[in-house]
Amino acid sequence: MSVRELVVLGTASQVPTRERHHHGCFLRWDDEGLLLDPGEGAQRQLLLAGVPASAITRICLTHLHGDHCLGLPGVVQRLSLDGVTRPVPVHFPASGEEHYDRLRHASVFHDVTQVHGVPVREAGVVATGRFGTLEAVPLDHGIETYGYRLVEPDGRRMVPDRLAAHGISGPAVGELQRHGRLGDVTLEQVSEPRPGQRFAFVMDTRLCDGVHALAEGADLLVIESTYLHRDVALAQAHGHLTARQAATVAAEAGVGTLVLTHFSQRYPDLVAFEAEAREVFDGELVVARELDRVRLRR
Amino acid sequence: MSVRELVVLGTASQVPTRERHHHGCFLRWDDEGLLLDPGEGAQRQLLLAGVPASAITRICLTHLHGDHCLGLPGVVQRLSLDGVTRPVPVHFPASGEEHYDRLRHASVFHDVTQVHGVPVREAGVVATGRFGTLEAVPLDHGIETYGYRLVEPDGRRMVPDRLAAHGISGPAVGELQRHGRLGDVTLEQVSEPRPGQRFAFVMDTRLCDGVHALAEGADLLVIESTYLHRDVALAQAHGHLTARQAATVAAEAGVGTLVLTHFSQRYPDLVAFEAEAREVFDGELVVARELDRVRLRR
Repeated sequence: MSVRELVVLGTASQVPTRERHHHGCFLRWDDEGLLLDPGEGAQRQLLLAGVPASAITRICLTHLHGDHCLGLPGVVQRLSLDGVTRPVPVHFPASGEEHYDRLRHASVFHDVTQVHGVPVREAGVVATGRFGTLEAVPLDHGIETYGYRLVEPDGRRMVPDRLAAHGISGPAVGELQRHGRLGDVTLEQVSEPRPGQRFAFVMDTRLCDGVHALAEGADLLVIESTYLHRDVALAQAHGHLTARQAATVAAEAGVGTLVLTHFSQRYPDLVAFEAEAREVFDGELVVARELDRVRLRR
Repeated sequence: MSVRELVVLGTASQVPTRERHHHGCFLRWDDEGLLLDPGEGAQRQLLLAGVPASAITRICLTHLHGDHCLGLPGVVQRLSLDGVTRPVPVHFPASGEEHYDRLRHASVFHDVTQVHGVPVREAGVVATGRFGTLEAVPLDHGIETYGYRLVEPDGRRMVPDRLAAHGISGPAVGELQRHGRLGDVTLEQVSEPRPGQRFAFVMDTRLCDGVHALAEGADLLVIESTYLHRDVALAQAHGHLTARQAATVAAEAGVGTLVLTHFSQRYPDLVAFEAEAREVFDGELVVARELDRVRLRR
């Protein structure tokens, strides 16, 4: 069964708190399992979330600050320990290659998994697959940073009543899908358009074109909101977003489900993040808590 | 006030479990704060234990397997973030120097703390200070591994009644201590011997001479007991100890307080570790739990 859901591993920016682990997300997208920005402790948070290392097919790092990548060594080593032998690509900004190599080989272990770095050297498609395309878009954080989005191509959904009306069933359905027609019956006659879904992952950054480009039409947007808007000057200075900024981008971009995360330790309570985002965004809103799961419905 | 206590950060061997974080210990020894084998998550566990990074004066790694060192980058970076500027030496087996360097500079951060590696090249004293000596002793784990012990020199404790009998008080006491006598009164007349205390840290290893040497006369021994004795063949094969082996060493060495830790994930319940150790050791026994504190009394 194809499941598309986000698993929140941690929600802290920079330093953990009593309630929050370092940042990290896992995106289950049909057969693909994307680990996004694993901060320290990601290995154990995956365990608590019931996600085995073997579910990870790909890893994306937005940038090489510690709170977004210090969980990588533990995950890399756990993949080997669990005997995963298929390749696991890791995408990261090319200027971070030296640090990536250190994290990849951080300590002594029996290295059996083909974890291989795929440095992002420019904006654009970094991978294609059954999921469609995975694209990297530059952000503005002082250090080279890329956000990512998954873009599924538009497709068509078969309509059972129409298939039945034309007497098409069983293996003939697959044949019709593959060839676009079956005798006189065309694919268009028995199906309806199904828009591809989009997932976007935006952190860390101040407002910039990349934020808008990534968010555009996202069914699910995970975006940093390190600060509340009363601290917008701090956000700007440190290259981060406020909840209001993130929610405004989401509203303008027609986002379906908005997930705010990556909160500064200065805010012990997250209620204000929800209130601030609600003022400008009226879609589904999740102010992320540890181990939250956010399902993306088709 | 001089406090000597062990703070348990995590108790897992190799992989974390739902109940156990990766291994790590913090030893507060008067003015010294030793961080021992910080596994992944040490930064957050220190926070939960109420130990600020600034309390760390020295770090010891027994070996470069991930479960004993992947917490180092987070701690190193936290020291800088918290503005600690005094030198923090890190002791580790010399063959692990390349991996140490990777952990030391694992990701991009503003590096202000003088964290400097002090590779252990041979058995013996690796540091001296007000605490006495810090010694490294080789263990048997397949990869170069050193256990550590703190050895405080024997001293003398002033006896208030005897001081009073000689009419000695105030600054005269310090003068007597510094010079060994004051007029006709000798230090021996007004004081009694106070044996120095010893702390020992033993992991990871199978039974070997080093285990016994480290444990000898320890007031506080922290020792790995990865396995129960029914799995002694596994322990031997993987270079680890059983609870019975660890407790037997402690009994023979005259250990005061024995702390067992570093438990395999195969044992969800630790009751059997306590029972097994109790059969052979009748001193103070602690089967370590996360965030336990073990006080060393003078």
